[in-house]
Amino acid sequence: VFELNRLPHPATVRGVRLAVASAGIRKAGRTDLCLIDIAPDSTVAGVFTQNVFCAAPVIVARDHLQDSQPRLLVINSGNANAGTGQIGLQDARDVCAAAGRILGCSERAVLPFSTGVIGQRLSAAKIVAALPQAISDLAHERWEEAARAIMTTDTTPKCFSVEVVCSGRRYTVTGIAKGAGMIKPNMATMLAFIATDAAIARPALEGLVKAVSDRSFNRITIDGDTSTNDSCMVIATGQTAPTERLTETHADWAGVSAAILDVAAQLARAIVRDGEGATKLVTIDVRGGTTVDDCLKAAYAVAESPLVKTALFASDPNWGRILAAVGRSGVPGLQMSALAISFDDYPIIQAGEPVAGYDEAISAKIMARDEFSIGIQIGAGAAQASVLTCDFSLEYVRINAEYRS
Amino acid sequence: VFELNRLPHPATVRGVRLAVASAGIRKAGRTDLCLIDIAPDSTVAGVFTQNVFCAAPVIVARDHLQDSQPRLLVINSGNANAGTGQIGLQDARDVCAAAGRILGCSERAVLPFSTGVIGQRLSAAKIVAALPQAISDLAHERWEEAARAIMTTDTTPKCFSVEVVCSGRRYTVTGIAKGAGMIKPNMATMLAFIATDAAIARPALEGLVKAVSDRSFNRITIDGDTSTNDSCMVIATGQTAPTERLTETHADWAGVSAAILDVAAQLARAIVRDGEGATKLVTIDVRGGTTVDDCLKAAYAVAESPLVKTALFASDPNWGRILAAVGRSGVPGLQMSALAISFDDYPIIQAGEPVAGYDEAISAKIMARDEFSIGIQIGAGAAQASVLTCDFSLEYVRINAEYRS
Repeated sequence: VFELNRLPHPATVRGVRLAVASAGIRKAGRTDLCLIDIAPDSTVAGVFTQNVFCAAPVIVARDHLQDSQPRLLVINSGNANAGTGQIGLQDARDVCAAAGRILGCSERAVLPFSTGVIGQRLSAAKIVAALPQAISDLAHERWEEAARAIMTTDTTPKCFSVEVVCSGRRYTVTGIAKGAGMIKPNMATMLAFIATDAAIARPALEGLVKAVSDRSFNRITIDGDTSTNDSCMVIATGQTAPTERLTETHADWAGVSAAILDVAAQLARAIVRDGEGATKLVTIDVRGGTTVDDCLKAAYAVAESPLVKTALFASDPNWGRILAAVGRSGVPGLQMSALAISFDDYPIIQAGEPVAGYDEAISAKIMARDEFSIGIQIGAGAAQASVLTCDFSLEYVRINAEYRS
Repeated sequence: VFELNRLPHPATVRGVRLAVASAGIRKAGRTDLCLIDIAPDSTVAGVFTQNVFCAAPVIVARDHLQDSQPRLLVINSGNANAGTGQIGLQDARDVCAAAGRILGCSERAVLPFSTGVIGQRLSAAKIVAALPQAISDLAHERWEEAARAIMTTDTTPKCFSVEVVCSGRRYTVTGIAKGAGMIKPNMATMLAFIATDAAIARPALEGLVKAVSDRSFNRITIDGDTSTNDSCMVIATGQTAPTERLTETHADWAGVSAAILDVAAQLARAIVRDGEGATKLVTIDVRGGTTVDDCLKAAYAVAESPLVKTALFASDPNWGRILAAVGRSGVPGLQMSALAISFDDYPIIQAGEPVAGYDEAISAKIMARDEFSIGIQIGAGAAQASVLTCDFSLEYVRINAEYRS
């Protein structure tokens, strides 16, 4: 039994301090560096992109996380340090080493993260030059500034806080994330950082970050492109009840893990809501599959179809595009006679036949909402899965045809 | 040994007559009906969409083709007769029955094809009303008119003729096709009809249509959306040498099959060239895979990535998007150290490292061409495969956000 409350403003997390700086990585004057300082005795776990050609910072952070106690996360926007070869790895390590020298810790206690353009060398020197001042600026209250510093094509910062009370103990969870393109996370999304003042044992935290990602960031798509830099980190500082570290059997586990999932789900939703050029957020809810994977396969086929996404943009109830996407999704055993499609709860197709008296004007009205759901029944199975997506607008093309210029 | 010539104008094929008409299916006055009349003793083979929710005419045509000698193909644009349930099947059969009555043949000798909007009832009555006049208009010279009649969002008709001379015998192959959206054919593209005056045995023709489709229509993508209506038919009238039907062992097989493939490849290329909103045609050429399927998997990941396609539109050599797409493609055994990327023959990445002295201005110049190729080396394997794609433009979104209105 626990009580979970979403907070209206970002809440500080005891044991976590943040700072931002303008390192001039891509454009002078742009806030493009973010530090997250983690108190000793915290536990940290993360998941990273499954893209084979992952970025240099992903390789380095994953390596450092194996055997060290992270003290500092160094995050830059403006340059992904991906596709940069051996020199890119060296650049990421140089940043860690410089931060370690200032803090008096091992370079392996520093984890690097990057987001931005792929294929251009990251200037480690610019980041290193900005580190001393930034480290002296570290403070508990800078969550919103941090959320702004990691933005690329995002139009709004993404920062959410949740408070959960379990058996009289109060825990805080605050997280930040950034989108807004190359978003079809596979294990984690492009840069999300969540912290709690709960104490959580490292193995339990590792299981939790994976489970939470699978139910939040790994269920969204903007353009179907899994980034080279996706990383999601969860930090548990233990400053609430440092003497006992939670595991799955603890009485507070349900409340704390629900709070972390809630923050992750809010961040994931905010990323799609702010998808490049997106004008609406659409839930693709697939039921009746034999397995969750089958449901996801059908859901992603619809969620990523350019024809469906442009129809969403136009609020055009051209549901034939949905039917066609499910039909090509490759889910085994699909049968037209089992297919049902609805917009919110308004039925369009049932048992494979157009519903008598169907009124296209009602569908168009539902699609004009800025959030709605497409329900798809693909069979008589018990599995269900849903995916969040957005529309493809003229602005999407404009943004991505002009992103680098 | 054979001599193959591409002809500058559509050539008639002895044994094939065509007609077009305005049946008023979607818009009054639009030419939206096309008939292809096939002389007795021809052989006909076809491949159809693998989309599970295939259209009513696909179900009927596939069924009729099993045991009958096709005499007439009836093709309408403006309405796909897909997602229309049992009544849609009846509408398709009603058209076949009406044509059979006029021609004095079985309804099973008539094959229906439809293209256009999904999910709206097709007016069989309008087509039936237009049939008598159209049938009396049948003529050998109407290939180009036929190509125009089957267009939907296409901006140009697609019609190609090839002549091949084998051991003194002259064969003609003429084909028509239409695109230009919901194009990622799986077994065949949305409506292609190819005819030759060669005589070809039915089993050999069935193998040929599949092999030809796999090497032409099944290697193109515009939007990754496999249509519900894809159909490719090859007609062999045998009016050149009717007494001997070609099979794979005949001396003329190589020449005739090369001619049919050449027409199919020209049609497939023309479909991508005319892709919705497309401004350029790009070949994604993947080498070094263990299998052709692995190469295709990587090629389609790049060819369908919205981020890659918007960069193509902008002529922006943002090759990181290509690297990211290959990295998420799911091809087993990918290693950064084996990756190479080039634009036409200009190298960008070799052995996983950025090429020294790389000049982005040269890449931008190549991308500004209206046709170019992206070469991707994914390993040391012997397999190769290429896919044709196009860019994603502002016009693409405009067309698909407004298509039905």
